[in-house]
Parts: sequence; structure tokens; C-alpha cells
Amino acid sequence: MSYKIGILGYGNLAKGCELSIMQNPDMELVAVFTRRDPSTVTIQTEGAKVDSADNIENYKDQIDVLIICGGSATDLPEMTPKYSKMFNCIDSFDTHANIPVHFKNVDDAAKASSHTSLISAGWDPGMFSLTRLYSNCVLPEGKDYTFWGKGVSQGHSDAIRRVEGVKNGKQYTIPVPEALDAVRSGSEPELTTRQKHTRECFVVAEEGADKAKIEKTIKEMPNYFADYDTTVHFISEEEFNANHSGMNHGGFVFRSGTTGKNGENKHIIEYSLKLDSNPEFTGSVLVAYARAIARLASNGDYGCKTVFDIAPALLSPLTGEEIRAHLL
Amino acid sequence: MSYKIGILGYGNLAKGCELSIMQNPDMELVAVFTRRDPSTVTIQTEGAKVDSADNIENYKDQIDVLIICGGSATDLPEMTPKYSKMFNCIDSFDTHANIPVHFKNVDDAAKASSHTSLISAGWDPGMFSLTRLYSNCVLPEGKDYTFWGKGVSQGHSDAIRRVEGVKNGKQYTIPVPEALDAVRSGSEPELTTRQKHTRECFVVAEEGADKAKIEKTIKEMPNYFADYDTTVHFISEEEFNANHSGMNHGGFVFRSGTTGKNGENKHIIEYSLKLDSNPEFTGSVLVAYARAIARLASNGDYGCKTVFDIAPALLSPLTGEEIRAHLL
Repeated sequence: MSYKIGILGYGNLAKGCELSIMQNPDMELVAVFTRRDPSTVTIQTEGAKVDSADNIENYKDQIDVLIICGGSATDLPEMTPKYSKMFNCIDSFDTHANIPVHFKNVDDAAKASSHTSLISAGWDPGMFSLTRLYSNCVLPEGKDYTFWGKGVSQGHSDAIRRVEGVKNGKQYTIPVPEALDAVRSGSEPELTTRQKHTRECFVVAEEGADKAKIEKTIKEMPNYFADYDTTVHFISEEEFNANHSGMNHGGFVFRSGTTGKNGENKHIIEYSLKLDSNPEFTGSVLVAYARAIARLASNGDYGCKTVFDIAPALLSPLTGEEIRAHLL
Repeated sequence: MSYKIGILGYGNLAKGCELSIMQNPDMELVAVFTRRDPSTVTIQTEGAKVDSADNIENYKDQIDVLIICGGSATDLPEMTPKYSKMFNCIDSFDTHANIPVHFKNVDDAAKASSHTSLISAGWDPGMFSLTRLYSNCVLPEGKDYTFWGKGVSQGHSDAIRRVEGVKNGKQYTIPVPEALDAVRSGSEPELTTRQKHTRECFVVAEEGADKAKIEKTIKEMPNYFADYDTTVHFISEEEFNANHSGMNHGGFVFRSGTTGKNGENKHIIEYSLKLDSNPEFTGSVLVAYARAIARLASNGDYGCKTVFDIAPALLSPLTGEEIRAHLL
């Protein structure tokens, strides 16, 4: 038997999910649903359909889990509750402050219709969240640190591209090496925003644009850049296309804690990711969790879940005997 | 309410568990059970009892989880099934080849008496196993690497101390830096045993002992040292006591994998531990899992479990709302 998967959307994350399904012999892509004209969308999976999102309800009995690939700002808050009435769903909702509301909306919809949905899967939230939780449980006295990068921030790249005179732009978030070293030492440093990350921007300016003004506008942009040491490089379109079209990312999660009667013994837990393709890795996490969600749903364990609620064995295509023999 | 814990044994690991219970306000140590004369054992927890292991059955209704601190060679294979008939139990069984048999024996005992027991908790097996499982699920195409150290191997230190003419000895397992770098590069190297770890021994020789012979015996010892580049340092008893009485350990787990239609994108997951005190960290893991096991047992989810079967949220003293708000 195989798990039958639907994907809503066909942007970078959806394409990452599709590629991941191809790596998992027990997973089958049934259809990609799009809000565009389906005839304009060509997917890579032989035998899978492309259909309009308007027709999605027709697939209610053909799909075990629907992976919703939309934006956290406006798409997912509306879509995941809506589709949790028809399907077991997975999303990668990452607007941290709105997780409680989103959780409740999805939970209500899923429970009322006997479905199981997972929100906020991926690597942060996702694999990083798991590391934070496990590490806090085993080292209750200590301090957490999360660093992002080196990698491309879509939000910051978008912000650059909105600046007048900018034709194209990409922003890399970079952890400060001295800050990483200080955390690894176990000294539990207090680090400001500026001490943790730097931001490096590569900008293609429009012809005749005022580069000094662009640089100043970027560096002083509130929330995005003002609190950071930011470097702006102006480059040609050719160089931009040749060297800055990737979607690499990654980061580090640390727990620095102590044990002993007087906290005399230090312990450092470090988890890091170096990802050539952020959307393909994120898609791979979503697909692994699709397996778990299908299993929970078939056991009648309905409602909204997060990665915290899923026993790790449920993610694996292997049996309990196999994982105990090979991975324990 | 608090979780009522018993500890069987009072060696280094048991003392680590006791200290961890003190760090967790929702945990209470009820009693330490010993095979020695209880009047010779002094524990650190006010109000907790020390009693003979022979009287343990009297505590059946006073203890939620019994943490069994014994050796994997002979103690745990007998003790964990035996006590799983009376208590929910946790052990740190780490003889890899015998896990299937141990699992079955504990599972049979626990199910027959409506108890829940967890085997093989700690950091390897334990936290490292979790990293291997999660990483294999999200990167199904790739390669696993586990390195241990730098840290003290009890088994290898014991082996040194059994050599004729050796008064005291300690062995450090050290990952080879070039091997770590090769794995981090994503090249997925094939590494021999010798290429992954070196072994460094600090030996106090008995007066008049033949040091050359001791060194040769250690270096050629099959299974323990013969397959490694081993260094032997002879030091004084004073130096040994001053610098080599710690129980630090740690290690690294990597998953190096690829995604993309032709595996063109590389991803590296790295998890590492740097531990000042191996028994205190291991004890902290066991205590966190005691919380989860008590919860599973009170939900009627009986039988033998491993870390793979436990949803991460069950380890935490926080509510679902709290962990979603602070750690997701």
C-alpha cells in the first residue's frame, strides 16, 4: 500500500514536496491543485494529475494527506482550516505570534470533520523546534540559542526589491562566528540582535539609480536591517544570475545547560543544518510528516497536531523492529 | 501533583538521576533501592528513603516509575523484565545486538501486568538514536555517521585496568578531526574504523612493571584497541587523580543526504553533545523520559517502549499551549 498525497500550490515548496515524494517508495502523488489555469502548469510526476483548486473536493476519497503550500501571511490562515474540513492536511505555517489562533482554527475544523492536520512543519518551525523541546526537557536549567544562516532570507530579499531603483536583490543572513564560539564555550552569553547575525545584500541597481541612496535606504530599514550590521554590494545582472540564484539556508540550535548539585557540570547540545535547497529540505520534512499524519488519522487520532505531538517512529517507512535494529 | 520516582542502584548513573530529579519541580524521589546494606548508603535527597532492593515490592503503590541503574551485560537483562512486573520502568540498556531480545522480554512482562517500560534511554542509545531516526526520515537518500568523544570510555578504561602491571588507567575516545571535516563537506566519505577515532590512554603503572609490555598489550588488544591508532601515556598517580578523574563525554551524529531530481542538492544535519558529566546528562535523559512513561501508563498505553515511540511533548512539564508558544 502507499500513502496518497495531494499538493495544493506549485511554487518552490510544492516542487520540493513533489521531489521528496519521488524519493519515498511508499508515497504516491495523486494530484497537484493550482489556483492558476491547470493547462499552464507542468509537473514532473508521471501519472499524477494537475487540476484546479476549485475541483479539490472531488478528490476527498482519493487522497490520504493534502500538503498545503501557501504563504503564512494570508494563504494558510484561511486555507488550512478550510481544507481540514475535507482532508488531513499539513502546512508550514511560520508566523510565530499567530500559531495559537491558527492551531485552534485548524483543530476545530479537523475535529468537527474527523480529520488530522499538522501545522508548522519544516525546519524552523519544525526540526529546530524539536531540538529546542528535547533539549529543554533533558537540560531544564540552561539557555537556548537559535542562529539562522548562512542562507537566503526570502522576506529580506523581497524587502530589498521593494526599494526604489533596485532591479533585483538577494539577502543572506549570516551568524556571527564569534557569537557561535561564545555559545559553544558554555559561557551562556547574553547576545544582542546585532551580535548574533550580520546581513549581506547583493543588489542589481536600475540604470542611473542613486546607489548611495539605495544603500542608505536598505541599511536604515526598520525591523529588517536597522538593528543589524548590514553590507550592501552592487553587482551586475550577469553576476547576480550566475552566483545568487540558489536557495541555500541552514542554521544552528544550541542548548547550553548545567547539572550537578551546584550546577558545576556544563553540557552543550548543538544541532545544525546546512541546506543547499531550503524548499527541497522543507518539502522533505512535510512529506515525512504526511506519513505520520496518515497513520494518526487512520487510528482515529483527530485534531490539530504539531511536531511535538508525533512519536518519531510514525515518520518512518520502517517497522518498529527495523528501526530498533538499525537506528537505536 | 508530582511524579513519584524510585531509583534502583546508587552508582554514578543513579546519582545523576537523583540530581536531575532535584532540577525538576514536578518530580519527587521516593526511595533509592540498593543491593548493599542500606545503612551504608547516604543519599542527597532529604525525605527520600534508602531501602534494600529486597523490599522493593512494598513500594508498588508509592512509585510511578522505577529507574533501573544497572549494567547492560548482566544486570538489566534480568532486572528490567523482573521489575516491569511490579513497576513502570526505565533503563539505559546499550548492548545493541541484544536489544530485540531485551525488548521482547520487557514487553511481555509489562503487558502481562499492565505496566509501561522504556528501554535504552540516554544519549547513545537515546538522543543520538532520535537524531538518526528523524534525519533518515527527512533525508531518505544519504549516509549516517556517528562519532563518539572526546570522552571517557568506561569499557576501554576497564580493559586497560585488567592489563597486568596496570594500577589505574583511563581511555579517551577521540574523533579524528579530518574525518569530521570530510563528513561536514558533504562528500559522503567511506571511513574505516581507524580513520574515524583515535584512542588515548593514561596509565599509572605498578612499581617495577614492564611499561613496554603494558603498552604493547594495550595497543594489540583485539576489539578494544587493535583496529585503532592508540597512544599510551604513563603518568604518576598524582597526575592521574588531578587530571583524569572526570567523566566527560560527547559525540556527533551526522546525516549527509541529497534531494532533487538527480540528487543535485546536498544537505548536512549535524547533532553534537559536549558533556562535562556523562552520568549526570544520561540521568537527566532518563528522568525526562520518566515523565513520559508515567503519562503513557496512566493512559493505559502498556508494554515496552523506546525513545522512538514517545511523542516529544510527553517529556515536557509544560502544557501543549506553553510549548507551542515558547518552543515551536
